[in-house]
Amino acid sequence: MPSIAHRGEQMPPSPIRKLVPYAEAAKRRGTKVYHLNIGQPDIETPPSILQAVRDADIKVLEYSHSAGFESYRRKLSEYYRRNGIDVNHNQIIVTTGGSEAISFAIMSCLDPGDEIIIPEPFYANYNGFAVSAGVRIIPIPSGIEDGFSLPPIEAFEQAVTAKTKAIMICNPNNPTGYLYSAAELSVLKEICLKHDLFLFSDEAYREFCYDGKKHISALSLEGLEEHAILMDTISKRYSACGGRIGAFVTKNQKVLDAAMKFAQARLSPPSFAQILGEAAVDLPADYFDAVHAEYNARRDLLVKRLQAMDGVTCPMPGGAFYAIAKLPVDDTERFCQWLLENFSHNGATVMMAPAAGFYATAGRGKDEVRLAYVLNTEDINAAMDCLEAALKEYNKR
Amino acid sequence: MPSIAHRGEQMPPSPIRKLVPYAEAAKRRGTKVYHLNIGQPDIETPPSILQAVRDADIKVLEYSHSAGFESYRRKLSEYYRRNGIDVNHNQIIVTTGGSEAISFAIMSCLDPGDEIIIPEPFYANYNGFAVSAGVRIIPIPSGIEDGFSLPPIEAFEQAVTAKTKAIMICNPNNPTGYLYSAAELSVLKEICLKHDLFLFSDEAYREFCYDGKKHISALSLEGLEEHAILMDTISKRYSACGGRIGAFVTKNQKVLDAAMKFAQARLSPPSFAQILGEAAVDLPADYFDAVHAEYNARRDLLVKRLQAMDGVTCPMPGGAFYAIAKLPVDDTERFCQWLLENFSHNGATVMMAPAAGFYATAGRGKDEVRLAYVLNTEDINAAMDCLEAALKEYNKR
Repeated sequence: MPSIAHRGEQMPPSPIRKLVPYAEAAKRRGTKVYHLNIGQPDIETPPSILQAVRDADIKVLEYSHSAGFESYRRKLSEYYRRNGIDVNHNQIIVTTGGSEAISFAIMSCLDPGDEIIIPEPFYANYNGFAVSAGVRIIPIPSGIEDGFSLPPIEAFEQAVTAKTKAIMICNPNNPTGYLYSAAELSVLKEICLKHDLFLFSDEAYREFCYDGKKHISALSLEGLEEHAILMDTISKRYSACGGRIGAFVTKNQKVLDAAMKFAQARLSPPSFAQILGEAAVDLPADYFDAVHAEYNARRDLLVKRLQAMDGVTCPMPGGAFYAIAKLPVDDTERFCQWLLENFSHNGATVMMAPAAGFYATAGRGKDEVRLAYVLNTEDINAAMDCLEAALKEYNKR
Repeated sequence: MPSIAHRGEQMPPSPIRKLVPYAEAAKRRGTKVYHLNIGQPDIETPPSILQAVRDADIKVLEYSHSAGFESYRRKLSEYYRRNGIDVNHNQIIVTTGGSEAISFAIMSCLDPGDEIIIPEPFYANYNGFAVSAGVRIIPIPSGIEDGFSLPPIEAFEQAVTAKTKAIMICNPNNPTGYLYSAAELSVLKEICLKHDLFLFSDEAYREFCYDGKKHISALSLEGLEEHAILMDTISKRYSACGGRIGAFVTKNQKVLDAAMKFAQARLSPPSFAQILGEAAVDLPADYFDAVHAEYNARRDLLVKRLQAMDGVTCPMPGGAFYAIAKLPVDDTERFCQWLLENFSHNGATVMMAPAAGFYATAGRGKDEVRLAYVLNTEDINAAMDCLEAALKEYNKR
């Protein structure tokens, strides 16, 4: 039997996959499971954009342009301009989800062995794209005690080597919910200019900012035009995760040319969801108001409940729909498994993502969990009742 | 300005991209262009499968399972069993086009620096996936003089090194149209078993076999169960290229486990086109009869016309919808450009793919072109009139 590649062994297991069988077993036992573990929104996909797919008059379901339908890219550039990101349709490559945009950024800018600095905790799937491309992620620590703000400039300076090609951020952040301020983005700009690094900015949660704070795109930073690469997706924005449509956006022509080679090799992004994405740009301006209000209420409730629990720390997240909480347990992986295997409260239990999987540094995040507030407030309340009771029982064992 | 990666520089230019601006210029001058250059079928996508997408009752367009909807995988396993490929739904990972299946095969089985043997000419985009993964393609020659049959076993033996991990074939072949015989597949099996290699089999054109010949899948070869990986797509089968749905299929559990890691990193394949693919399995058995008859007539006409031209050689392809022809010109890239820039016949010209781009060995295929017979017979006739007149004029210059 031929042996498989070692490549896959470098990929740490997903922070949630390991627990899935326990969740399934709990459901088989009749226990309701509140899923706070994944970023799959429950918000309805806007019916009008689903209708646009139904209404499309398709005779031959053809490949689109490798960069995506031109009509969609023109629409997208309208969307970006409305959001303070001044790009034209030739500076956009439509991708298969945000995932492919991340992959294109890494492939276009880093050679095997090159390094990319990422504040940890970070979106765990970055590991997969780095392993695929043979590049190294160099984590620098952000911590719950500072609310997951940007690590100090010294931490970046210390991490830069001759092999460093880029800094990657997710803003607002998955898994921390942290929204970077103008001052923090200035620091990033300074480092990128000083060391001639790319800034990869994953802005999947652009629309989800709270407390009146404004999102600032890396692509809108003056002087960073040749350095900034925006990695985007419609998955969260329009609750359209299954469409698999994202975007790779940059003003750097050489990077665009390189990325187009990888785009051409895979022929085209999915056609159906491009139609959906194009229709979404024309959603009424107030579409996000209701969505935003809903997430805001969920966040406020979730964090208030967590902060009221004995021994729990949870900084208020400024964006996205995640929060990281520090729990009074020694190992959240064991605790999360116990919740699914051995606990129920009013016939229900809670599934959360142990946060250690979002850290690249061994040992960090062992007493933290990530919670995605993708359930309605009633369910969040019930889930928090459950967690509160569980923590009491767990520590009494 | 930060410098981009060298990675992209290793990707040879696409055999057709370079000519696209000339085709566009020709159209702007009012010249009709017969596109025989790309494998985009003109056949209508079956209306019933497009209707299935319209009829889907979607509230939230969610991520599917990373391996694809279980209902679709179960249906697909029916399809494969009908085609003599005995697999269950757990041996299938639904991919984003055949492209991603190729990528998963390479990522799962080869580490950076490893080698994969491919008979040339081969599908040019294999280069892109190899470069992305940091692996080397080792070409071994097949030639027009032998009708592009499998290279002799000695050629494989000579190419095998300690770094060889796999042999990759496309059957029926793009770009040659060659259909491998049972005897040739036996040779491949023998080599794979002897040297413990994977056999990657791209079977995108399974349904397109002519002259009563039967397609034999690598996955149906007895004794090769742990070695064979099928890379598949619905793009050509149902004229659904824009759906971006393919499949990675193997009975090797370790390979499946490794591929699932890469599948999970990119979350899921596109949902809409999975619905389309699932409906397609239930198309009436006679669906392919009409499609098959149409391609058969096109092939017969195209090859007859080419063979009747002075100095042109064109072996009769046994499958797919491509033919490679040797033309009486010194450089088909220059000739194809000249056709678009300087020639017209009855107000029209022809676009073909210069074949050199399908060879990895420099200098091979310089007097060959690939023609995709994706136009109706009337247009093929007109395109061949055009080519015939062009060859006469080109060589008189």
